[in-house]
This record gives sequence, structure tokens and C-alpha cells, in this order.
Amino acid sequence: MRVLGIDPSSQATGFGLIEGAGDFTAVLAYGVIKPDRHLPLAQKINDIRLRVEALMAAHNPEEVAIENPFYARNVRTAITLGQVRGAILVAVASHGRPLFEYSALEIKKAVTGYGHAEKEQVGRMVQTLLRIDDPRLEEDASDALATALCHLNSRLFLKNVEEAKL
Amino acid sequence: MRVLGIDPSSQATGFGLIEGAGDFTAVLAYGVIKPDRHLPLAQKINDIRLRVEALMAAHNPEEVAIENPFYARNVRTAITLGQVRGAILVAVASHGRPLFEYSALEIKKAVTGYGHAEKEQVGRMVQTLLRIDDPRLEEDASDALATALCHLNSRLFLKNVEEAKL
Repeated sequence: MRVLGIDPSSQATGFGLIEGAGDFTAVLAYGVIKPDRHLPLAQKINDIRLRVEALMAAHNPEEVAIENPFYARNVRTAITLGQVRGAILVAVASHGRPLFEYSALEIKKAVTGYGHAEKEQVGRMVQTLLRIDDPRLEEDASDALATALCHLNSRLFLKNVEEAKL
Repeated sequence: MRVLGIDPSSQATGFGLIEGAGDFTAVLAYGVIKPDRHLPLAQKINDIRLRVEALMAAHNPEEVAIENPFYARNVRTAITLGQVRGAILVAVASHGRPLFEYSALEIKKAVTGYGHAEKEQVGRMVQTLLRIDDPRLEEDASDALATALCHLNSRLFLKNVEEAKL
């Protein structure tokens, strides 16, 4: 199964594409989408949409996972974050791919075994689990990979439960 | 000049299309976009995008005006509102139309002459100014028409200033 993980924030949107096959998980791509700060607001948001659509067209993920935020510094930041999420939701729905949401707690727990793990711990575990050796791996990209891993884990878990029922 | 006014909220998105020519302002269309509550989140947001795009394709507004919110009940509501705004921004940018933002204060002031006017007062003034006699005019649609009127006024004001300079 091929999963696109997305970690949107008001400043930058991380993405990570992974493919799980049996015990092996391969990283296909990761990075950060930062629209040109000088673009007018609507174009900035549409730029995010176009870049997520381009990623989906290039890599054809079967499912998409995104963090479900319940926290933001203030209402202003929350609206900005929501706008970025809106652009991503449009891209995902346009490609007809199902979207799954996970809380930060679930994502941290899936990757480190502990829901309240530190940011750095999550980053180190993502690099270890996915055998990435990239000192320049950005936090947003790492969080997106963690979200994709979380989804893949929950998929594998459900599959095992199904099989155990047979 | 043909203006599309949009009033997004977490529950429903009002729209209003008006055309200003000299002293006369005509209403072309108004209404409320409410996506099916049973749709998954991404499709709900994409549905709003598609419906705003359809409105723009049908009526071809030259400019779009939207309220710039600075208030929301809480972070959850602000993120939901932001997602709806994101879908609208994508639609506007896809059609290459410029977007203008106004605060609630500016919109109320433009329509009633008073920035802290009551909701009902705004509704009555919109109906009077645009010669609408519709007891079923919904508040979201009325607010969208007020936003469009606010933009048209500021456009006419700028035009008058330009002409006075000649």
C-alpha cells in the first residue's frame, strides 16, 4: 500500500510518501511545500493545492493521511492553518483518494510508542524506521512521514485482525 | 463592474452577485452553499470549491470580495472556517480573479453607515439598497450581498478620487 502523509502548518506543509509491502517499508519521496510569500493569498493557497495534486499525479498514493489538529496558538493562526488544510482537502478529493485523520497523540504513539514523545524523538524514530540518513530532513517532512507511518501501521493492524478472524 | 461577494462560515457559505453600472446596482444571483452533511470532510470542502467555480463560470464576475474574519468561537471553529475559506480561495485563484478582503466593520459601515450595526439592520439595508423583496433571504446570502456592495462602493469611491484628480 502506498500512503501520502501530509503535515500542514500555517507556514509550510510537509509531505512524505511511503510504500509498505509486507515487513518492508520504502520511502518514495519527502519534502516541504512553501508557497512564495509574495504571492497574493488566494494564489498562495491554490499553489499548495496544485503542488499536492502534482505529487498525487506523480506518485499515485492509494490513501492519504493527515494530522487532525486540535490546537493552534490563536484564532488567526487556526484560520490560516484551516485554509492550507482546505487546499489539501480539495486536492485529495479531486483525485478521489480516501483521507484519514490522526491526532498528534496517535501519530507520536505509532512512531515512538509514547503519545507525548518529544519532537526530536519522533524525528529520530522516523529516520530509524525508514532508514533515512539525511541530516537536512526538515521537521515538517519528518512529521508528514510519521503521519504516513501511523496510517500504514493502523492499516496493517486492521489487516492482521481481519486475518486472525479467518 | 460585476462583483461576487462571499460570506463563508463553518456551516454555510453565502454568495451574492451584483453588477454596478453608474448609479444603478443590479442583483444577478444570491443564495447559500450548504454541502451535504453526510459527505466525508474532503468531499464536503471540494464540493464548496466546485460550486463557487460553477458560480464564477456561469456569471463571470470581474472581482471577488470576501469577509476577512478575525473572530471565531474557538480554535476548532476557526480551523473549520479556514478550510471553507481555503476551498473558496482555490476557486477564485483558479479563475484568475482578484480577491479583496474586508472586515465585518468595513462591510457594516459601507451598508448602514455604522460599523457596529445590528445583523437585522444590515439585512434590511441590503434589501433596501438592492431593491430585494424576499422574506426568505437568508442571513448568509444577505451578508454576502453586503460584502459585494462594500467592494463596489470602495471601487466607485476610488474611481471618483481618480477622476477628481484629473
